[in-house]
Order: sequence, then C-alpha cells, then structure tokens
Amino acid sequence: MSLPELKQLAGEIRALILTTVAKNGGHLAPSLGTVELTLALYSVFDLEIDKIVWDVGHQAYAHKILTGRRNIFHTLRTKGGISGFPRRSESPYDFFGVGHASTSISAALGLLAAEELQKKFGKVIAIIGDGALTGGEAFEALNHAGQLKKNLIVILNDNEMSIAKNVGALSEYLSEIRLAPQYQRAKKDFETFMKNLPLRDIGDKILNAAQSVRYGLKSAIVPGSMFEALGFTYLGPVDGHDLRAMKDIFSRVTVLDEPILIHVHTKKGKGYAPAENSPEKFHGVGKFDEVTGEVMKKPAPPTYTEIFGRTIVDCAKVNKKIVAITAAMPSGTGLKKFAEIFPDRFFDVGIAEEHAVTLAAGMAAGGLRPVVAIYSTFIQRAYDQILHDVCLQNLPVVFCLDRAGLVGEDGATHHGVFDMAFLRTIPNMNILAPKDENELRQMIFAAVENNFPAAIRYPRGSGLGVKIDDAPKNFSWGKSEIVFKSARAEVSILAVGTMVSVAVEAAEILGAKKIPANVINARFIKPLDEEIFSPEVCNSKILATCEEGTLSGGFGAAVAEFLADKNISARLLRFGIQDKFIEHGARSELLKICGLTAEQIAKKISDDLNGR
Amino acid sequence: MSLPELKQLAGEIRALILTTVAKNGGHLAPSLGTVELTLALYSVFDLEIDKIVWDVGHQAYAHKILTGRRNIFHTLRTKGGISGFPRRSESPYDFFGVGHASTSISAALGLLAAEELQKKFGKVIAIIGDGALTGGEAFEALNHAGQLKKNLIVILNDNEMSIAKNVGALSEYLSEIRLAPQYQRAKKDFETFMKNLPLRDIGDKILNAAQSVRYGLKSAIVPGSMFEALGFTYLGPVDGHDLRAMKDIFSRVTVLDEPILIHVHTKKGKGYAPAENSPEKFHGVGKFDEVTGEVMKKPAPPTYTEIFGRTIVDCAKVNKKIVAITAAMPSGTGLKKFAEIFPDRFFDVGIAEEHAVTLAAGMAAGGLRPVVAIYSTFIQRAYDQILHDVCLQNLPVVFCLDRAGLVGEDGATHHGVFDMAFLRTIPNMNILAPKDENELRQMIFAAVENNFPAAIRYPRGSGLGVKIDDAPKNFSWGKSEIVFKSARAEVSILAVGTMVSVAVEAAEILGAKKIPANVINARFIKPLDEEIFSPEVCNSKILATCEEGTLSGGFGAAVAEFLADKNISARLLRFGIQDKFIEHGARSELLKICGLTAEQIAKKISDDLNGR
Repeated sequence: MSLPELKQLAGEIRALILTTVAKNGGHLAPSLGTVELTLALYSVFDLEIDKIVWDVGHQAYAHKILTGRRNIFHTLRTKGGISGFPRRSESPYDFFGVGHASTSISAALGLLAAEELQKKFGKVIAIIGDGALTGGEAFEALNHAGQLKKNLIVILNDNEMSIAKNVGALSEYLSEIRLAPQYQRAKKDFETFMKNLPLRDIGDKILNAAQSVRYGLKSAIVPGSMFEALGFTYLGPVDGHDLRAMKDIFSRVTVLDEPILIHVHTKKGKGYAPAENSPEKFHGVGKFDEVTGEVMKKPAPPTYTEIFGRTIVDCAKVNKKIVAITAAMPSGTGLKKFAEIFPDRFFDVGIAEEHAVTLAAGMAAGGLRPVVAIYSTFIQRAYDQILHDVCLQNLPVVFCLDRAGLVGEDGATHHGVFDMAFLRTIPNMNILAPKDENELRQMIFAAVENNFPAAIRYPRGSGLGVKIDDAPKNFSWGKSEIVFKSARAEVSILAVGTMVSVAVEAAEILGAKKIPANVINARFIKPLDEEIFSPEVCNSKILATCEEGTLSGGFGAAVAEFLADKNISARLLRFGIQDKFIEHGARSELLKICGLTAEQIAKKISDDLNGR
Repeated sequence: MSLPELKQLAGEIRALILTTVAKNGGHLAPSLGTVELTLALYSVFDLEIDKIVWDVGHQAYAHKILTGRRNIFHTLRTKGGISGFPRRSESPYDFFGVGHASTSISAALGLLAAEELQKKFGKVIAIIGDGALTGGEAFEALNHAGQLKKNLIVILNDNEMSIAKNVGALSEYLSEIRLAPQYQRAKKDFETFMKNLPLRDIGDKILNAAQSVRYGLKSAIVPGSMFEALGFTYLGPVDGHDLRAMKDIFSRVTVLDEPILIHVHTKKGKGYAPAENSPEKFHGVGKFDEVTGEVMKKPAPPTYTEIFGRTIVDCAKVNKKIVAITAAMPSGTGLKKFAEIFPDRFFDVGIAEEHAVTLAAGMAAGGLRPVVAIYSTFIQRAYDQILHDVCLQNLPVVFCLDRAGLVGEDGATHHGVFDMAFLRTIPNMNILAPKDENELRQMIFAAVENNFPAAIRYPRGSGLGVKIDDAPKNFSWGKSEIVFKSARAEVSILAVGTMVSVAVEAAEILGAKKIPANVINARFIKPLDEEIFSPEVCNSKILATCEEGTLSGGFGAAVAEFLADKNISARLLRFGIQDKFIEHGARSELLKICGLTAEQIAKKISDDLNGR
C-alpha cells in the first residue's frame, strides 16, 4: 500500500474503533494512539513469519481489525464476541495472551528462543508502553535479552502515560531523551569546536585523541544510553504518527542481528479530540456519545471506589500516620482526592505492585499506617511480598482491593476472583468483604486502627445505595452478622460481600416456597467467625456458602475445613466460581454462567432439600 | 576506633563467623565478603538514628555480631537460636526482615518516608548485591526513589555473583564500570587533547564549546550513567575491603541530600581461601572442616535435586523441544549438567522469577517444552505469571519445585509450605508430589510429555535410597496408588509426597495397636484422584490426610471440599502445617513441632478413634 492509502486506512480504522467503543465501551485512547504504529509494523513485518506481542493488549484494536476481525469487531467485549485483549484462542495472529502489564518482552524472548531452536527465522517484536516499562518484570527481561544478544526488537510506545500520567525516574529520563537538549547541544558544540580548530597545529597524537573523544561522546551521550547499558541498540525517538518515518526505521532493523529498542513517541487518544484532551478518562471508558465525548451515565448510587476515596481521606484527617499507595491508578482506585489533600502522604509508584507492597511494609515498620489500593487482579503480582514482607512480620498494612469478583467486559485476565483463596493461605492475614458500600466504610475505619495486616475486597461499580454513616459505627473485628432471619430455619446461608444481598433475595424466594432460611453476612473470610457455627446453623438441613470468588480454596473451602476439623457433619452446599477461567461479558451474564443469581441459588437449595 | 583496631576487629569477626558456620552450616561466603563493609558503615552511621536494610540478609552475620549478638552467635540457625537472616523480632537493629532477594530498596524507601513524615532525620541505607539487583522489584524501587529525590543511600555490594556467577546485561555493565577502560581512556585522551591545544589560537567561542564538551563527557561517560539516568548520584567503584576508602566515601554522602548509589566491590568468601576459591560452594554450606574446607558429608542416597538433574538430561536427549530455565540457581536446582550438555537450551535468567515464568510461557507458545526449576519458596514471586501467562493459556510448562516443605535451618522465609495451597487456586494447574526420588523421576518423564501445565514439588535433601528406574515406567496421570494395605482397615491415610513414608510408619504403629490402616499415596494434589474415595475409604472410621504444607487451602482442604461437594460424611483428620509461620531448626525438630512424625500421627488417630 502507498502512504496515502495507508493514511486513508488509518482514518477508517480510527472511525471503526471510535464507533465500536462508543457503543460497547473499551480501551479507546490507547488503541487510537497506535493505529499508525500498527500499520507501519504490518507493512514491514510479515505475520506469517514474524511474531508480535502487544504488552497489556489494550492498544491492540487496530491489530485485531487488521488480522481478520474487522467484520466481528462490533462484538468487542460482549459475551461470545471478541475479547478486548489479544488471546491465542481467538486468532493465530494473537501470538501471546496478554492483559496484565510488563509481560511482553519476556514472552517475546521466549517466542524468539523457540524460533531459533526450531531453526525458524521469524523476527519477534514486543511493543511495550512507557507505563508498562516501569514494571520490574520488563526490566528483568531487558536485562536477560541484553545478555543473550538475540535479535529481539522492542518497540517502546512512549505516550508519557501509564493509565494516568506516568511516574518514575525512567519517565523523566524518557522525556529528557525526547527533548534531548543536552545531546543536541553537546553534539553541535563539539562539531563547532572541531570545525574551528586550527588543524595545522595539531599533531597526530592530538588528532587521535580527538577521534577518541568523538567516539566517547557518540557512544555515551546518545539518547538511550541506559538501554545501551542493558545491551540494546537504541534507535529513535521517532514520531509514532509518521508512517513514513516508522516504515523507514522498521525496515532498517530487519537486517540487524542484535537486541534493538525503538523509541516511538505516540499520542494517546490521537485523532479524537475528547480523548486527546482527556486521555485518562478515555483510557478505559464506558459507553459514550461519539459527537460530544460525553460518557453516558445512568444515575446510580456512589461506587465502592468513591466511598473508599472519601473514607480514606476522612481517616487520614484524623490519623496523621495514614499514607496511601497506588500502582499507577490514582483515579481508578479513588485516591485522586487523597493525593490533592495530602500530597506528601500519597505515593504513586507506577505499574510496580511488588515495590508498592514492600514499600508499604517498610513504611509500616517505620511506624506509619499504609493503605495500599490495588485492583484484586493486579495484587496477584505481589503474593510473595504480602507473605514475606507484610504478613511474616505481621505489619499493619491495609490492602484495599477494588474490582474484586467478576469485572465483566475485561474478561478472564481481569476478574478478581482468586484473592480470597490465595490470601487465605497466608498466616496473619485478615480478609474482609463488605455487604454494601457503608460497610466498606466501616471496615476501613476499623482496619486502619489495627496493628496487623488486613485486606478488604469489594466489587467494581455502584454500591447498593444505602445510607452512608459519617462517623465510625460499632464494628466488631472478626464478627459476622445475621442479616435475614426466619423462624425455624431449615437453611443457613453464609454469604460474602456482594453475595449477601443476593443470598437475602434467595432466602426470600425460599421463604415463598415455605423453606425458611437465615442469611449470615460473613464479613470475615479470615479469620472465620467461629460463632457463626451455632447449633442452629450446624443443625440446618442445609448450610450454604456464597462467594463471588473461586471455590478452590476460597471461603466455602474455609468452611469445609472448619466443619471437618470440628467434626461437625452438615450438608454443605458451596456456591461460587468453579475451578476454571471465566470469559468476558456483562457481569450479570457472567454471574448467571457461574450459577450465582438468587434464583439459581434458591433452586439448587430447594432441589437439594427435595433430594433432586 | 582507629583503622588498625578496625582491621583487628575484622579479623576477629571473620574467625567467629568461620568457626560458627563450620559447626552450624550457613551462608559463609556472602558474610565473609561484607565484614569491612559492615565495619565501615557502622563507623560512620549511627544505628540509634540511622537505619540499614540488608537485602536477602545472608551477608549480615557481621551485622548480627556487632549489634549485640556476639555471645549468642554460636546458636546461629539452631532451634531457639538466632536466625540466619535479620528479623525485626530478634533485634531492634534488624530494621526490616529479609530472606528473599530484591526487597531492600523498597523497604528502605518506606522507612525513609516514615522518617520524613514523622520529622525524624535518620539516614536510611539499603545494601543490595549485584545479583539481587537483577530482580525486577529492585528496579521498580530505584525508579520510584529516583523520582522522589529523597536522600536514600543504596550500597551496591558488587561481588560479581548472585549465588552462582551473575548473569544479565547489567552484570556485564557493572564489570565494564569496574574496569572502566573507556571512561579512563576517554578522560585521559581528552585531557591530553586539551593540554596540547594551541590555546592562543582559540577564541572564546571555541573555549566555551570545549567546556561544554568536557561537561558532556563528564556527565555522560562517567561510570554509572545508568543509575544517573534513574535519578541517582553514582559514586564508586570503591574497594569493599579498604576500610579507609569506604569510611571516606560514606562520610561524604552523609551531607548530601539526594538519592545516592555507592558501588562497592567486594570479594565473596574474603579471608578464607577455600571460600574465595569456591564462592558458590561456600555460598550456603553445611558443616565443614575449618582447616581443609572439606564439607562433611554422611554417605547418603542421591538427593531429589540430583535425580531431577539426571532425569531432565535424559528427557532432553530424547525430546529436543525440552529447554530448562533457572533463576540464578544452576547448581542448587541440579541443572549444572543440563547446562553443560545443552548450553543452547539452558537459560539462567538471574534472580528474576517473574521473567523466568513468562519466558517459559512464551517458549511454550512457540512450541517448546520448558521446564522451570525454582525453589518452592521463590516461585511465590511468580504467582501471577503462573496464573496469567501459563495457566490461563493452558501452556505446557513444567515447574520443578525443589525445597518444598520445611527446609530446616533457613527458617520462616524459606520454608516451601505454601505451594500446594496457592497453586491449587489456579485453574488448569496440575500439582504433583512424589513419594520418593524414583517417583520424582517418573513424574518428570510423564509431565514433559503433556500438553498442559504441571508443578512437581519435592523436598530438600536425600531421597529414600530406592532403586532408580532408568526408563519411564507405567505412570497413570491423575492416579493415586495404595501403598499399604490392611485387612478390614478402619483408617485410611491419604498422604502426599514426603508424608507417604511417614504415613506408612504410622500405619505400622497403628497396626501394632490392632488398628488396621491403609495408606494411599495421593501423587496428585490437583486434580484430585476421585477414585481414591472408594466406598471402603469413605466408610473408614477415620480418613486422614497428611501433607508437609499449610492446612489452609492445601491438600487436606481439597479433600474436605470434595467430601462436602459429594455429600460424603466421613471423619476427616487433617495433618499438616497450622496457619502460622514456622521458625528455623533442624527439619526433624520442625516436623515434630508441626505434629508430623509417625508417632504423633498414629497417636492422634488412635486417640480420636478412642474418643479422646
């Protein structure tokens, strides 16, 4: 294709992305920013031979459209439709499944090793954002690739953002490179210097020295010396919306045989003014009006995120030891307000969950009360740090895990369904889940006053619309509560978090069928409130557990362990997520797939009672 | 203290370390390498005000001796004695608990933030090895610290080793700095050049240009430009055994107010010839003869590690797709032989478990059969990568987890007791544990032929001395086996891995008490072999599970879940590790503490049968 044709195609792709995301929601700004990059790549490289790994993958919509999914692109992020992220099961051109940040260089290096050992000769390219580059795994991979000296091509898609404005020294370094005044000036100065030297007076020795200095300058002051130090040849920066420039540089590297890093400068949201102006808002966005850029919002109760943000500010006003940490999500986790009011007590560490957790442990060891706000799915990155740095030392770090449970359209890579199970394996950990947004507030009030670690997990989206108590209420640590009581109950439902209101609904359905049921809000996944297990509960014909999390090792498992250890025989029915990965779709659709609606729960309980 | 006094003290400390480790075993070479560094630090900094965090902590014996533990140093690594690693509970001068690599910069930054917010003015110093610096978390922390611009002092203890010879581009970079010929030459050349210039002919303009070039040279070619790029002021390299030089440089930085990285060059094993010559052998070592350096070895059957190493070589000879990955442990994991025979198929990624796992996933996606050999405790670092990169894509990566279970003297940070519980939460994962070293071999033969992920966990140390089958035997995937059968058994013991032989012994004790018991070798923690649960097993008066792992979510939990879900009521007794951290001591002592000896198991079973 000629350049004008490619430009026209870029426009058509942008239009399709815009229209689709306006309807379905999705990662608009990142994908608009990489349209030309994708086109330039696919003009030069041959996906029948070469392999490309998109880090995170939320910038890969143009890739999907160009690799056979244009006609089904309208199904983006819908149940049964195409995923918002590259997936090996979706297309042979999705060479590696992605979703979490900073994995692309490792995976690409693995693919390259596989090519070589199998005597194939495809190029392998990793495309990683400047945000994802702050993740330690990316550094581990650069360090390894630089030593292996294989012909790996890393494209640094630098848009000066992770999800929010990017942070970290590396980010400052990249912006220096982009501006590069020092290099430009030094180079110019040196040239002037050499040009004006009275050469007739200079002997060979000095000339050699001058050559050597010039060499030193070139190899050391060139932008990207940091990547050069890691064994990569650095090229760039190049304008990520200039098709010709990118095609040129990509063509040049195809003949090189060494690790290459190409620094491409792109604009997040490129081509759609509202997204260019508010790239954070349009990073991942719900349905919106394509013309005005107005996000469609139904009137709804405040989100759990909002209540967390409000509450942590309230706590910090009273307790000066409270500090807050986020990993590149000041807005997504609800910490924007905190950051404004307490800039000295707010820490955005970039996409660096491991560091976030050990940093918090250090702060706690130093006498502070750190609150770490990270999505449930991303805290998976820091399992060892939670165990080894926080819980082994029993330090008072509070983890606030937003987006716990099924997150809906983002799908399998992003569901926060493992947290209860993997955190429960760690001694000293306390795990809580609120039944509603006001209980979240009360749990935070209580957790920051403790002397030990705790994790509070709560779902994405709006709360139930309950009244919010301004002040801390009486909240007994470790205690469950009965939320629905029937006379002569035959069924006891122990429910966790989001499942409490569903369980109450199920109990009402059962009540209508003359099956009296009680519902207990567990509140604590760990430690388990042993007082739950009153004779009445243990003697229920059915004891049911309900959780929006994996059954394998989760809350229901904890109850099964407890009953076994106490030699209590009860008919235990465990409702939760089976031991498999759950795809994308509307959260309500996914809950149904998992058998977690009130109707499904009530039916299974009554069937069991009736011996069916 | 004067320099001669410090030198004498260094000698005394070395002697105490040497004598103690020769008797108790321990981390000799790292601790011998940091004696002068510790003395220089503690001469300049005041631990009543300043705080020091030792990365990993296996180089902190001199620190322990100098901070009030000289008289109890002989109890090193023994039950009830002092730990081999810094621990907050052991001393107020152990400012942060360590054990796993690459956490010190994060923790130190947290401690520093706590100082500042509480208006204290102590310096905070992190001491990190060049090996630990390859861990991504260390990079995340440098990147964050460089931006915060706080006065954090990082001491890079560069001994050119992680545990084995260090790898990675960074390692090459550091050695270039140490030698620094380019800088030295360029600087010298430039000086010659300037000196010989016919200055009378040079106008102001050229002089300015020359100044600028000199500035450019200085700021860019100085060693450590990579750390400078990350916002640190780089100082060094300095000889880590030269007390005067170190005291000088440390004194100078106390007045600076910016992030500082001091590059100290030390020799692992310094002062003890056998350790200087074989730093890897004396990294972590058992009892040895102080005079000869001979490690005391009782004649013993081959270790699990040796059998793994042998078997993976055998597999790789047949299956050309097999590649092996280690994270800085070629020797510890038994991959030395593999590396010699198949250098192109062997990958030592440095201390970088996250990258190791995603690299393996990429290799598997490219058609290879990667085997990842990482100790159980360190694979905790890669929970998310196992979940998100391997299991979500159901890729055939085989994890060989050595040092699973209680490791003994290394203690709480190093016990591999969580693996079964946290891996069990991950869909598509298969988890195996062999009853002996020959079964390990058979499991490896089987696992590398599969098309899906698997983890095999096995203990530290010698096998049982059973006959090793050369060729693969019939091994049915997913199937348990009955290993001890009694007529009219009242008790069924389901045992995992190391606990199988213990359970057989327990069954023999029970048999002697006229309590007939069967023992089943579970082999698979996941998927659970449902055929275990025959009517005979389910109707046992007691069904016991035995595992050398945490009870919270582990194998016994899986059995409790299964029994509940299938509505099987059985008296289930779960033997394993309670939900708390286990200290250091001899493995046999620790097993007793956990109630995992044959006598304890038999007694608890018979007590339960007798209603006690």
